[in-house]
Amino acid sequence: MELLDAFKWRYATKKYDPTKKVDQALVEKIVEATRLAPTSSGLQPFEVFVITNQELKDKIVTIAYGQQIVGDCSHLLVFAAWDNYTAERIDNIYALTTAGREQPADRYKDYTDRLKTMYLGRPAEVNFDHTARQAYIAFGFALAEAASLHVDTTPMEGFLNEELDQLLQLGEKGLKSVTLLPIGYRDEANDWLVNLKKVRHPNEKFITEIA
Amino acid sequence: MELLDAFKWRYATKKYDPTKKVDQALVEKIVEATRLAPTSSGLQPFEVFVITNQELKDKIVTIAYGQQIVGDCSHLLVFAAWDNYTAERIDNIYALTTAGREQPADRYKDYTDRLKTMYLGRPAEVNFDHTARQAYIAFGFALAEAASLHVDTTPMEGFLNEELDQLLQLGEKGLKSVTLLPIGYRDEANDWLVNLKKVRHPNEKFITEIA
Repeated sequence: MELLDAFKWRYATKKYDPTKKVDQALVEKIVEATRLAPTSSGLQPFEVFVITNQELKDKIVTIAYGQQIVGDCSHLLVFAAWDNYTAERIDNIYALTTAGREQPADRYKDYTDRLKTMYLGRPAEVNFDHTARQAYIAFGFALAEAASLHVDTTPMEGFLNEELDQLLQLGEKGLKSVTLLPIGYRDEANDWLVNLKKVRHPNEKFITEIA
Repeated sequence: MELLDAFKWRYATKKYDPTKKVDQALVEKIVEATRLAPTSSGLQPFEVFVITNQELKDKIVTIAYGQQIVGDCSHLLVFAAWDNYTAERIDNIYALTTAGREQPADRYKDYTDRLKTMYLGRPAEVNFDHTARQAYIAFGFALAEAASLHVDTTPMEGFLNEELDQLLQLGEKGLKSVTLLPIGYRDEANDWLVNLKKVRHPNEKFITEIA
């Protein structure tokens, strides 16, 4: 199947069948897609939480304004972005890069110095806005990978971020929650959205070609 | 090929072969992927520009700190997000949704009223931060679709946004540029990145499972 067909197939699932669980091998592929997503300067400034604990999912239902998809889904992914850039975080990933590419120890020093000059003087909020955007690319990759596997998903921003950060103790890890991604299998008979047409702006309102 | 293999195959191309053009049919698939991407409340608050005009691409090289990939690529995609939410924009897409789903005229009135209450009182910067994030999901979809077609891409944030906005007269359309996506075919012999290992945080630093 072409990926574009998967993009047409997917929709924001509104009702999951709680008895249908996604195979671990498929979950690992979806998570691996997020790990492979590109990020600005390769800093990969976010983490992913994969929650199957029912008690915890039920608590997050409340934090997500009672949306039962969070409780009924098979796996709940939480995307959490770095709350700020730090010298240590920049050095850590470039130490991995240097080792992984078998390069001299100072290969990326000039580059990381420039990144530090650019990022470390900025307010944390500005940096978080940037890290969050990188997480959204990976969020897109997770949606794409899941669709390609015919695993249903629901992209979600509607939840109380600070309450979720507290519940998952994200602050202690220097993280802030950005998005939720319930994954699982649709309960087709009880999903009000499943048979409604996908509507988008037409090309003439959305695309401008400059040749 | 599995999509995950495409994600492993892709990399941020650093040198394009300017003689190799991407077929229009493939470009249309990549653009269609961005159009199909999910967005918050289905507002689809961004547009995509597809630039092949060489003179314009060359001007954007300057705006992108001299990065020649912008000039050498086959097609340059510009992702531009709404500079703000407006009642008209919200009503426009929900008029399409109402018509597309053959629903009564006021089917989404309560919903769009809630969206207006939520968004129209907020500063434009807050709303733009939100529209930009939606564009990043679609940016991820474009990267995924291109990779699935073995078309090379370079995700880019490094350019002077305001200068590009002026050049493309985005302000008059209520848009602000967010990202660039050169697409084309790599010049493998002259691309310093093509054979370097893709490095990411290992799973134990990136994924937390809560079972």
